[in-house]
Amino acid sequence: MKNTQGHSLDFLFHPNSVALVGITTANPLHWTRTFLDALIESEFARPLYLVNPKGGEIKGHRVHTSLRDIPGNIDHVIGLVNAHIAPRLVEECTEKGVRAIHFCTAGFGETGDPERIKLESELVEAGRRTGIRIIGPNCMGIYCPESRLSFSPAFPMEGGPVGFISQSGGNSVYLVRQAMLRGVRFSKVVSYGNACDIDENDLLEYMAADPETRIICLYIEGIKDGRRFRKALEKATREKTVILLKGGTTEGGARAVAGHTAALAGSRSTWEALCKQLGIISVRSLDEMIDVLVTLLFMPLPGGRNAVLFGIGGGASVLIADEFESRGLRVPALPEEVVSELQEFTPAAGNILRNPVDYSQSMMDAESTRRAFEIVSRWTGTDFVVTFVRTGQFVLPWLSGARLHMLLGRFWIDRDRLPKPMAMVLEPSLLPQEAEAILTAINECVSSGLPVYYSFAAAANAINLVLSNAQTRPGAV
Amino acid sequence: MKNTQGHSLDFLFHPNSVALVGITTANPLHWTRTFLDALIESEFARPLYLVNPKGGEIKGHRVHTSLRDIPGNIDHVIGLVNAHIAPRLVEECTEKGVRAIHFCTAGFGETGDPERIKLESELVEAGRRTGIRIIGPNCMGIYCPESRLSFSPAFPMEGGPVGFISQSGGNSVYLVRQAMLRGVRFSKVVSYGNACDIDENDLLEYMAADPETRIICLYIEGIKDGRRFRKALEKATREKTVILLKGGTTEGGARAVAGHTAALAGSRSTWEALCKQLGIISVRSLDEMIDVLVTLLFMPLPGGRNAVLFGIGGGASVLIADEFESRGLRVPALPEEVVSELQEFTPAAGNILRNPVDYSQSMMDAESTRRAFEIVSRWTGTDFVVTFVRTGQFVLPWLSGARLHMLLGRFWIDRDRLPKPMAMVLEPSLLPQEAEAILTAINECVSSGLPVYYSFAAAANAINLVLSNAQTRPGAV
Repeated sequence: MKNTQGHSLDFLFHPNSVALVGITTANPLHWTRTFLDALIESEFARPLYLVNPKGGEIKGHRVHTSLRDIPGNIDHVIGLVNAHIAPRLVEECTEKGVRAIHFCTAGFGETGDPERIKLESELVEAGRRTGIRIIGPNCMGIYCPESRLSFSPAFPMEGGPVGFISQSGGNSVYLVRQAMLRGVRFSKVVSYGNACDIDENDLLEYMAADPETRIICLYIEGIKDGRRFRKALEKATREKTVILLKGGTTEGGARAVAGHTAALAGSRSTWEALCKQLGIISVRSLDEMIDVLVTLLFMPLPGGRNAVLFGIGGGASVLIADEFESRGLRVPALPEEVVSELQEFTPAAGNILRNPVDYSQSMMDAESTRRAFEIVSRWTGTDFVVTFVRTGQFVLPWLSGARLHMLLGRFWIDRDRLPKPMAMVLEPSLLPQEAEAILTAINECVSSGLPVYYSFAAAANAINLVLSNAQTRPGAV
Repeated sequence: MKNTQGHSLDFLFHPNSVALVGITTANPLHWTRTFLDALIESEFARPLYLVNPKGGEIKGHRVHTSLRDIPGNIDHVIGLVNAHIAPRLVEECTEKGVRAIHFCTAGFGETGDPERIKLESELVEAGRRTGIRIIGPNCMGIYCPESRLSFSPAFPMEGGPVGFISQSGGNSVYLVRQAMLRGVRFSKVVSYGNACDIDENDLLEYMAADPETRIICLYIEGIKDGRRFRKALEKATREKTVILLKGGTTEGGARAVAGHTAALAGSRSTWEALCKQLGIISVRSLDEMIDVLVTLLFMPLPGGRNAVLFGIGGGASVLIADEFESRGLRVPALPEEVVSELQEFTPAAGNILRNPVDYSQSMMDAESTRRAFEIVSRWTGTDFVVTFVRTGQFVLPWLSGARLHMLLGRFWIDRDRLPKPMAMVLEPSLLPQEAEAILTAINECVSSGLPVYYSFAAAANAINLVLSNAQTRPGAV
């Protein structure tokens, strides 16, 4: 039987001390060094120990030759050792009062090699015998801004309402790094890998009860106990919004899962049906997950599906109207009275006073832009407004940081006075001279609490998913 | 009746002289100045005249107060004047022997205003009377690297095999600017707007016969003569690959079309059926159009749908296998003998020797990476190889330019010796420190003639579209 004493997993996220066992002393770019870099950068404030039989020093931290060598208790071990000695490390940890070991180490069941499958069961056995809980192996472990536990440099130390349970380490790093650029912050992130002890059920039950977590994201490759997982999901969705990305829903994907975390994948239709029943938002990529998070966090729920699209670009207007309507949203015609009101102060040439409103030629006039924007927002037929400045279509002089900034400033300055939820679409650019201006604009929108999307398709898709979810779970979002 | 004398439109693309009529002298950031900036940057080598009643000088070029004021004939006029005086400008042009006028000017039929609709018919009337051909109004006109005619600074002056006929100006700028970063070059691009004289049929017939154009891209909002358009498409698809983006396929999109170029949009299903019948590649966005172009130009047609995915990231492996298989491609299991061959020199921990091949832990060893890459490429079950380095999931130290460069160099150095077509997925980054490294990598791949995609989904989608098209048009691609 598995080691599930039923007590809260809170100790995993708030260790009193951490030891990095198996960190490389020689090569500062070795992957094991990432964990030390992360904890130094996060300014982890509790005792932090390094262990390597060779001893020595790294960045002013003494390297102990063994765990025994360390004075006092150790709460949490990050195991970076070779898979072959992992079971022995568990035994060694008992002496030091270790409560949890996160094994980053790969090379267990996921290889498909019988010897290494056996090694993983030895690890499970050692955990059970000692009572020490194990995260992994083959994963990145825990990121918790509150306790400053982190597995990657450049993660934000400001917390937020999103919990992420990810079977994959790479996907967890990707999500945190990309979502942080859009203003998303996390309560707890766990990359749990092969799940030899602590698994998706333990973590989901914990997150469902965690007061710091309002939205639960899941990247799941496979589950071992379907009944318990469903129960945990039911509980989680009762009070929180759950977003699920299921990896391995195709034949090739399922084979990849077998090689990655040795889990059983399950068919796409089964998972879709489950999500539908329980009111879970099902996404098909990490980027889609981030788009949904941004919508949930920064866009007050619109009263309906009617979008007014306001910005720059005639050809863009046509394509974004198609993007929105083909994804379940509506881009209604502006009524005569709204158009007349706009016509009073807007030149006809180069502006298109329909919906989308292409304000290309008048955008340089700050006052009329703001006035037009407020008029279309105020219209009772408008449920939300999406602003488009299709940066990629402009010739370079347009895109000086100052000009772009000025254009975009038209929209967000009066945001609090706007009567409708709004969203910004800002397309990233590869060109350095544009990239900087766009990044600045993205940062300013994010600081103002606006939802930012990188494409019209992404915005339409996420807003549609959130609206559809809200309809099935009234009052929950 | 329309002015269609039947002679080639070649004179549109190779004018002997150009006059910019209505260019602003006061404000160097005014939109009319873009055309001068573009022609200066492209080093247009024929006589170039500027006209504005106020006279003066811009960047060392004399500004003539009227067309009459210019000595000698003028071949091609770019009309930047107010819509109200556009018909009069056509009349004035007869004296100077002008053969074509491109009216960038907006404010005609597309406004829906009866007076301005009348203005557009006066323009048509003037063209008919004088025999001068008109491009537009409400468009960006012509870009032809061979003659150095251009409507945007920063367009490449190196030519290529792609012709683009675009009803929208913004979409034409977007396509050229974004596609050039991926190595795509153009024979001729025409943004033709309201099509009051020269229309999609004239241009399509021209491009179909143009020896410089091998692939024809179309962005169409609406057509005026369905029978002739179909005939022109039939002719074009006989010898060339045609890619079509139809704008206005939803109700809201069709309304936007009416406001943008006053064309009739037509339903999506009609257009899809047409594309299927004629073997046209139908795309839903400009980015998809670029992905297809990159595939056609830089990926030798794979013999089948079996992809081997090779690179870095276990979680990425699962998701990209799903991305590929859900888009009609296959990610077959590697056979025992290929896996054994890889196992001979690849450590088990941290590498996944299936398909996708996650070579995370061994990628730093150049020799074994190349060897592994060649082994999976050589396998008879492999039709093409896609390399993935999911940059977005790495912690920063990994992404120094030098390291990324080194990693990617493993793949493209021996490209010519590789027995199978290959593609690279390189995800752009917003972060300046990464953006530069990734841009460098993209540029190097592009210089090596490799197809580069910004996401797995984009790569899978485009490769699937090209393979499907090749099946319906054997021998054509």
